[in-house]
Amino acid sequence: MAASRDALRTFKKTDFPVSNIRRFLEPGPIVLVSSAWKGERNIMSMGWHMVMEFSPSLIGCFITSANHSFDMIRRSKECVINIPTVDLAAKVVGIGNSSGRDVDKFAKFRLTAERASKVGAPLIRECYANFECKLVDSSLINKYGLFVLEVVKAHAATSPKYPKTIHYRGDGVFMISGENTSRFRRRFKPENL
Amino acid sequence: MAASRDALRTFKKTDFPVSNIRRFLEPGPIVLVSSAWKGERNIMSMGWHMVMEFSPSLIGCFITSANHSFDMIRRSKECVINIPTVDLAAKVVGIGNSSGRDVDKFAKFRLTAERASKVGAPLIRECYANFECKLVDSSLINKYGLFVLEVVKAHAATSPKYPKTIHYRGDGVFMISGENTSRFRRRFKPENL
Repeated sequence: MAASRDALRTFKKTDFPVSNIRRFLEPGPIVLVSSAWKGERNIMSMGWHMVMEFSPSLIGCFITSANHSFDMIRRSKECVINIPTVDLAAKVVGIGNSSGRDVDKFAKFRLTAERASKVGAPLIRECYANFECKLVDSSLINKYGLFVLEVVKAHAATSPKYPKTIHYRGDGVFMISGENTSRFRRRFKPENL
Repeated sequence: MAASRDALRTFKKTDFPVSNIRRFLEPGPIVLVSSAWKGERNIMSMGWHMVMEFSPSLIGCFITSANHSFDMIRRSKECVINIPTVDLAAKVVGIGNSSGRDVDKFAKFRLTAERASKVGAPLIRECYANFECKLVDSSLINKYGLFVLEVVKAHAATSPKYPKTIHYRGDGVFMISGENTSRFRRRFKPENL
């Protein structure tokens, strides 16, 4: 019973163009950030992030120094942004509630660490997409907790086309992503697609 | 017929705590940014933004210098972040397709400019929520197009509790916000709500 509750969907993934990761990030999902440093690995839940540039593929994200991941990412200068789907919601909350100081979250939440190709931080296999990132600007960390990351390699599931993601509102409330529509597509100027 | 197509819902709004605007912004909706400068007013559509702090209530957002709003916000040091609901989707696309250099977008898209209380930029009445913002850090505009804004006053509709928002994926595709759920709430540690 416990085993079947833990039987998560496995995604078949392929390389995804780094300049187009907005497809999954711009709609604003909670993400899981994985990191590694000196033989240790960790995961944090993160909701404060934004796309900053297509090429190079830049992401800005806020990480408080209270997080165990803060120093791991700052020192290793690498991390992976993983996109969890709604079936991982309980794990996302659990990951946000616990600290990597106390537990190995991969083990505790039965998530699979996979080797990334361009960074030392692990990918989370059970997530829909994984963006391997290098910390390219650390000058805003002290003032704003703002990490400027470059996505150097991206992996995304081939099906479904769009993941069902969870979006945090605070106060224990999630919005779950709904319908995807291109019915407004003909209204866009081609150069604005 | 045209009149009835243009008959948009009017929201009854009340003051909303600025430290809690994440409720509407963190899930990642497309927003409309209104500004005013030297007797001119403008609106732009924006998808690249993030919450950066609760108190002061900080938002980071990316605006390219190609936008007519770029200089208006940089010079006036003010703007309003407005949250449109899905019934405004066609207008949001039209606003993104046109430039304030050529048209008054309030007139063209039949949106109502309302006086804000703490900034000179107008609120958009037809939007679900309006966040009056001051530009508090312009030092990252040249390097990253990053405007750091402080929300100094917020207005939000009292009903529905959560707006049905549109979230852009690029390529002419919107994700429309789905179900809101607090079924994971009991899993959160109280201090993490």
